[in-house]
Amino acid sequence: MPGRRQDPIELARRNWVDAGWADAADGMALVTSIMRVQQLLLGRIEALLRPHGLTFARFEVLRLLAFTRRGELPVGKIGERLQVHPASVTNAVQRLEEAGLVERRTNPSDGRSVLAEITSAGRSLVATCTELLNDEVFAKVQLTGPHTQLVVRGLHELRRQSGDFD
Amino acid sequence: MPGRRQDPIELARRNWVDAGWADAADGMALVTSIMRVQQLLLGRIEALLRPHGLTFARFEVLRLLAFTRRGELPVGKIGERLQVHPASVTNAVQRLEEAGLVERRTNPSDGRSVLAEITSAGRSLVATCTELLNDEVFAKVQLTGPHTQLVVRGLHELRRQSGDFD
Repeated sequence: MPGRRQDPIELARRNWVDAGWADAADGMALVTSIMRVQQLLLGRIEALLRPHGLTFARFEVLRLLAFTRRGELPVGKIGERLQVHPASVTNAVQRLEEAGLVERRTNPSDGRSVLAEITSAGRSLVATCTELLNDEVFAKVQLTGPHTQLVVRGLHELRRQSGDFD
Repeated sequence: MPGRRQDPIELARRNWVDAGWADAADGMALVTSIMRVQQLLLGRIEALLRPHGLTFARFEVLRLLAFTRRGELPVGKIGERLQVHPASVTNAVQRLEEAGLVERRTNPSDGRSVLAEITSAGRSLVATCTELLNDEVFAKVQLTGPHTQLVVRGLHELRRQSGDFD
């Protein structure tokens, strides 16, 4: 979408104040900004991953598995660590298995749970894609001065308020 | 999802640093935090709107129309102002029309474009839902001290970098 003259979120914030909702105007601008930035970032990330056959959700599963000592985790644990819905993890793991990037097997220490293990093809792909995202997105979203850490701290506070961690 | 002991994003940030990607670690934490907070906020908002038959996307269309002088806008203009994909706006407007909340008609001053006009049922519903979101979400996401404005400013910078406005 092309750049535009005025910031639409700032326009909305002024509409909120003019309507008599000043106490909610900053919160509305915060929430709407988060929605918008998420959309921009996800779009950029998925465009980079698409040629490698990954989505961001599937990249995150591979990245997490590659960080573990043995390259494997119970599928339920993956959902907890990535804070995503169990059905989404199951779907991501299934698609990764179809692509030969992980293998699933029954947990030898708990017959009711399923382990996902990253394959060597998975390790190779996630190394390539991590470098790509680090270079093209993560190292570039640095804000000026101390802003990156301030924003992360502010978002941390929102997540704690929502019971995201203790 | 239940609260958990440690912040998974902080764990990921440390994994990034330990892997030798310190220059991208803060950016990764920023991007992942934005994704997570967006998911939490959208879940809360949509749970509040669902009993009223609205999604956040459809609420935003109604809210924008209610703010205009005549309660109507060309559908293409709605997409620009809300910064969403034309197909998404078309879909939202169609669902709102099916629910009797907007009406569509040919633009009298441009036969190729379609106007969406909010109905009185639409005005009544968006007033109720705005109050609900203001009270239950927007007025509550205030961060401590000056953090709300700092985060909005930081996100503003990210949006400007992405060409979101001039």
